[in-house]
Amino acid sequence: MSNSSNKKTSRTKINRLPKRGYYDQETLYSILDSALICHVGYILDGEPRVIPTAFARIENEFFIHGSRVAGNIKALASGIMACITVTRLDGLVLARSGFNHSMNYRSVIIYGNGTKVQENEKLNILNAFIDHLIPGRSSDGLKPISKQDLLDTTVIRYPLNEMSAKVRVGHPNDDEEDYDLPVWSGIIPIIREFGEPITDPKMRHTTPMPNYVKYYNK
Amino acid sequence: MSNSSNKKTSRTKINRLPKRGYYDQETLYSILDSALICHVGYILDGEPRVIPTAFARIENEFFIHGSRVAGNIKALASGIMACITVTRLDGLVLARSGFNHSMNYRSVIIYGNGTKVQENEKLNILNAFIDHLIPGRSSDGLKPISKQDLLDTTVIRYPLNEMSAKVRVGHPNDDEEDYDLPVWSGIIPIIREFGEPITDPKMRHTTPMPNYVKYYNK
Repeated sequence: MSNSSNKKTSRTKINRLPKRGYYDQETLYSILDSALICHVGYILDGEPRVIPTAFARIENEFFIHGSRVAGNIKALASGIMACITVTRLDGLVLARSGFNHSMNYRSVIIYGNGTKVQENEKLNILNAFIDHLIPGRSSDGLKPISKQDLLDTTVIRYPLNEMSAKVRVGHPNDDEEDYDLPVWSGIIPIIREFGEPITDPKMRHTTPMPNYVKYYNK
Repeated sequence: MSNSSNKKTSRTKINRLPKRGYYDQETLYSILDSALICHVGYILDGEPRVIPTAFARIENEFFIHGSRVAGNIKALASGIMACITVTRLDGLVLARSGFNHSMNYRSVIIYGNGTKVQENEKLNILNAFIDHLIPGRSSDGLKPISKQDLLDTTVIRYPLNEMSAKVRVGHPNDDEEDYDLPVWSGIIPIIREFGEPITDPKMRHTTPMPNYVKYYNK
């Protein structure tokens, strides 16, 4: 585990609307832990690339993974700089003025150079990916991740020491004189719901749906 | 409007799991139209950047916008290459094997060099951003977007002619011999719900909540 704390840099400083910026670990980690995917930006052959992918956080470290032979994973594992964004959308903000329409959101940006995780560390980290999807899953009698699976997978580590969050909450901000306009205004909340789980029809046994699946709410 | 159609290039070709790749306009536009934000990747001072932002599509063109003075918008408007990703997450895929856990998703990647939209085109496009958030909103008696708002806003256009989608649907794919394992497996759907709209407590009049707000479902 890295013990370094987060530092504000020219890359992570929120310049536009600085009052929406956050740099404290509690805010940052709560956004990361509530999200299921990140978008990883990097440069390949002089051009920008962005991939949506799963992630895991263990203490002050952030992990992504992929096939050992995938081009994007090979590039990222070589130690190049990545810009990783995690975004949760919370609402539509309907103002009186067209120009003031907005969204409520929580987003985190992380900068870092990735490093390849060693073979003997991979198993714990891959199980953390599973438990990030759905807590408790990795210890529910799954077929364990094999030595070959580990060999086929590259895991990339980023220290969480250069990041910031930007958060918008609340109702529209209109000009004072516009509050008299007869336009309905307010927020439509956006909620990420987990629907009724769907049992795989190819199940050959009668293992009941576990409670951590039935009542899942991240 | 650009009439060019989508072409598969080395950048947009899906190499990993090619059966998940789509290049047809219908699939691509239906994903774009169902999403509320995109992640825009670009290069600034030789480093990768990714910003989450709103967007609008009009026919074969894709638009983002921002403050005229924002550094990221100035960079993107200068004509540099962008990699734009739009991602919808549809489900958690819980397999019998730890290694086969996955997610169901629909994602689009667009490559293009942005160009600045002319002053006289901006108003229509900014109204398209509002109607992309919530259809019908821009014509509901809002305070119109002013000449000054238009001057303060940079709108950037991307042709939609180099893009691809990647889509995963359905149940887990486990190895044949693992289907006998007594592990519950299946899908937990992820649903983007719009919650009960919240009226701005600063409303000074009694305009009722319009039906397009009350019954919104994108």
